[in-house]
Order: sequence, then structure tokens, then C-alpha cells
Amino acid sequence: VTRWHTIGVIGGMGPAATVDFLGRLVAGSGAAGDADHPRVLVDINPQVPDRNAALAGIGVSPGPALVAMARRLVGGGATVLAMPCNAAHVWAGEIEAALAGGEARFVNIVDAAVAALVGARRVGIIAVGATLSAQLYQKRLASAGIASLECDLTIVHPLVHAIKAGDVGPAVRAAMVAEAVRLVADGADAILAACSEVPLVLSADDVTVRYVDATGALAAATLAAARLE
Amino acid sequence: VTRWHTIGVIGGMGPAATVDFLGRLVAGSGAAGDADHPRVLVDINPQVPDRNAALAGIGVSPGPALVAMARRLVGGGATVLAMPCNAAHVWAGEIEAALAGGEARFVNIVDAAVAALVGARRVGIIAVGATLSAQLYQKRLASAGIASLECDLTIVHPLVHAIKAGDVGPAVRAAMVAEAVRLVADGADAILAACSEVPLVLSADDVTVRYVDATGALAAATLAAARLE
Repeated sequence: VTRWHTIGVIGGMGPAATVDFLGRLVAGSGAAGDADHPRVLVDINPQVPDRNAALAGIGVSPGPALVAMARRLVGGGATVLAMPCNAAHVWAGEIEAALAGGEARFVNIVDAAVAALVGARRVGIIAVGATLSAQLYQKRLASAGIASLECDLTIVHPLVHAIKAGDVGPAVRAAMVAEAVRLVADGADAILAACSEVPLVLSADDVTVRYVDATGALAAATLAAARLE
Repeated sequence: VTRWHTIGVIGGMGPAATVDFLGRLVAGSGAAGDADHPRVLVDINPQVPDRNAALAGIGVSPGPALVAMARRLVGGGATVLAMPCNAAHVWAGEIEAALAGGEARFVNIVDAAVAALVGARRVGIIAVGATLSAQLYQKRLASAGIASLECDLTIVHPLVHAIKAGDVGPAVRAAMVAEAVRLVADGADAILAACSEVPLVLSADDVTVRYVDATGALAAATLAAARLE
């Protein structure tokens, strides 16, 4: 029987993306039966203040809500925390500060995704406005000597809203693929799905270059951090 | 914006089945965006004592673990609880007793699935040993004037174990479909997937008669109970 830390998931941004992340955790655990899986406590909280509005200065900060969720998961016994929402990582520092000195560890999606991009030269980032304007990925990639290309938000924002409303149909898929293809045509040698709604309509099969999905990278890093020897 | 009770999910039996249930909750909420979804607190606890072993008298009761999970979800703010595992409902009475007098309500999977079977004459039940030997569905169906046919456990148990180990491939699917087809050949005019691993490899398209999936019935009943007007 594999032994694990209890995993806490700060979720709900959006709910379908959290379910996608949980599916990767379960599929990636390598468990041979129920008892081999990690315990996972999940807070799917769709009322976290809007990340894009906050960063645009027209909404309250989601920081306090995220810290409260983290604290409650830790209070329930979680010692490895993950948050399957890229934009919310603009406030990751507040969560990390709140956990400092305690036993729980926060697994950062940016660390996980950037580690998976080593060797790329120019990454096409598909993300929402908060993630891009906070330079969440661009700065980290630049320190690793990797250039970035940003997606067109006038295309990606409506698609993310459609996915959050439950539309993962062919038109949404085709439009997301077209944006990835455009980034490749503009010189990207890797595509980073840096919004957890994106992999609900885009996969490695859709792009001709390397494809890194931040949700998948976070799931792998979370399982690695949670595994006890 | 739709307003909801907070939903608590007593999960992990098995983990993939819980993720399947969460996906139905999200898809069924009719939400137009993140903020329209219900808040869902989830405890994916794969260490709940084995239900089949307990009912066979060779393992400890899962009742206390399930009650502890329910209490903690309620302590976190959940007022509508659901448990996407049929066999664990043998101990549903212990959960309901623990919640009695409080504000939280437990949505029972047997109630939800039986309500969806009204009008059937002879239901083929695909379930594990604990569910069948506790007569969880047969008695309730009989009171509604509906006869039952039980699946062959020598076929279904190995398939459920394979699914819990992550195998939802073509061989497992074909064997589960064959068992459903056999029940129809033996006279079932409806198939009830009464184990939450079953819908991971069986769907309405696989059977020629009416198909009720207890997980789907529970998700619909949970959303109905959680919706505030």
C-alpha cells in the first residue's frame, strides 16, 4: 500500500477545471485499489472573487478567500496543498505566507509548468488577462532564457467564459485550436495551457509543437510531493 | 445568480467514482459562470473500511468512518450531503442518525435511483456483494411492485476491482456490457447501475432497455435538494 500525505485542493476556479484536476490526481496515483489512493480534501468554492476584475482594479482581492480556504484545508488535515487555477497564483504569495512555519506545503503551478518547459525557446502562453498582466509566466520563463508569446485575449476570454458556462463543444474547441496554431505560426516552439479551462478543449494532439498543460504538470508535482516513502 | 446550499460529498469509494459524481454535479448545475455553481466540499477518503468485507463479517464496519466524514463536512458548512457509493448506503442509517436534529440533510442514493425506476417491471441490478446481500434495492423495488434480477458477482466483482485499479479499457467495458445484456436476456426490462464504478464503463447506449445509473440519479437529486429559491 502506497502511503501519502493528505492533499488539499483550493478549487472552484472554475468547478469543471477542478474536477479535471481531480481526475488527473486519481489517474496519476498508480493505485491498485481504493486504499492505495491519497486522501484528498477539496473545497470547490465558486464564490472566490474574480481574479481578472481584481487585477484590473475593478474588484476585491481574492487573496483573503484563498487564504481562508487554505487554512481550512490544513485544519482538516491536508499537508500538501494545490490550487488548479493559474490566475489565482497571482495571490499565491499570500497563501504561502499564511502557511509559513506550519507543516503544510503549497505546490505552485508556475513552478510545475516552467519545469516542464525546460528546453523550449519561445513559449506561446494561452491564459487569461490576470495571468498575463501579472507576468506570472513571462518573468519566470525569461529567467530560464525562454521567450514568450502571449495569446490574444479578445479570442481567449470569450472562450474561457463559454467553457465556464459548460460549453466544451466543437466550435469552442476549434477556436482554441486556431489560437494555438496562430501562436505556433508566430514562432512558438511550445504551447503552454496556462488557464485550467484550456485543457478541457485542447490537447497535445491538437498542436504540432510541444504542449505543456499546467493542470497536468500541477497534478504530477502534487502527487510527487504527497508520496511518502 | 443561482443560490445554493453548500453540498458535502462523502467520497473516495472509489476515488474515480467520486470524480465522476463531481463531474455530474458541475455539468448538471446549469450554471452560466463560476459564481452560479454550488460550493462543494469533498472528502475523498480511500481509507474507509471495505464495505464488502464488513458485510461478510470479515472486516470492521465503515459506519464510524462515514459518520466522522459527514460530521466534518457539516462542520465545514455543508447542509446537503451525498455519498456516491451504493454499498456504503448499508450504513446510511448511521449517518442519518448522526445528522438528526441538525440542519444538514442526507440525500439517499437508493431513494434517488428507485424514483427513477418507476414504471419498470423487472430490474437487472448490477452491484457488489454488500449492496445485494443487504437487499438495499430489492426490498425497495419490491414495495414498489418491481421485481429484481441480480448480477453475477463472480463476473462483476473482478470488473469493479479492475476499474478501481484504473482499468476502464475495452475488455472491462465489453465484459460489463455482456453482463447487462445477459440480465436483459433473462427478462430485465431495466438495468440499474447500482455500483458507482459501473457507469465508468457502461452507458445507456450499451443497453437496449431502460438504463438508470444511480450516480446520475444521486447527482440530480443532490442538485434539486441544494437549490435555494
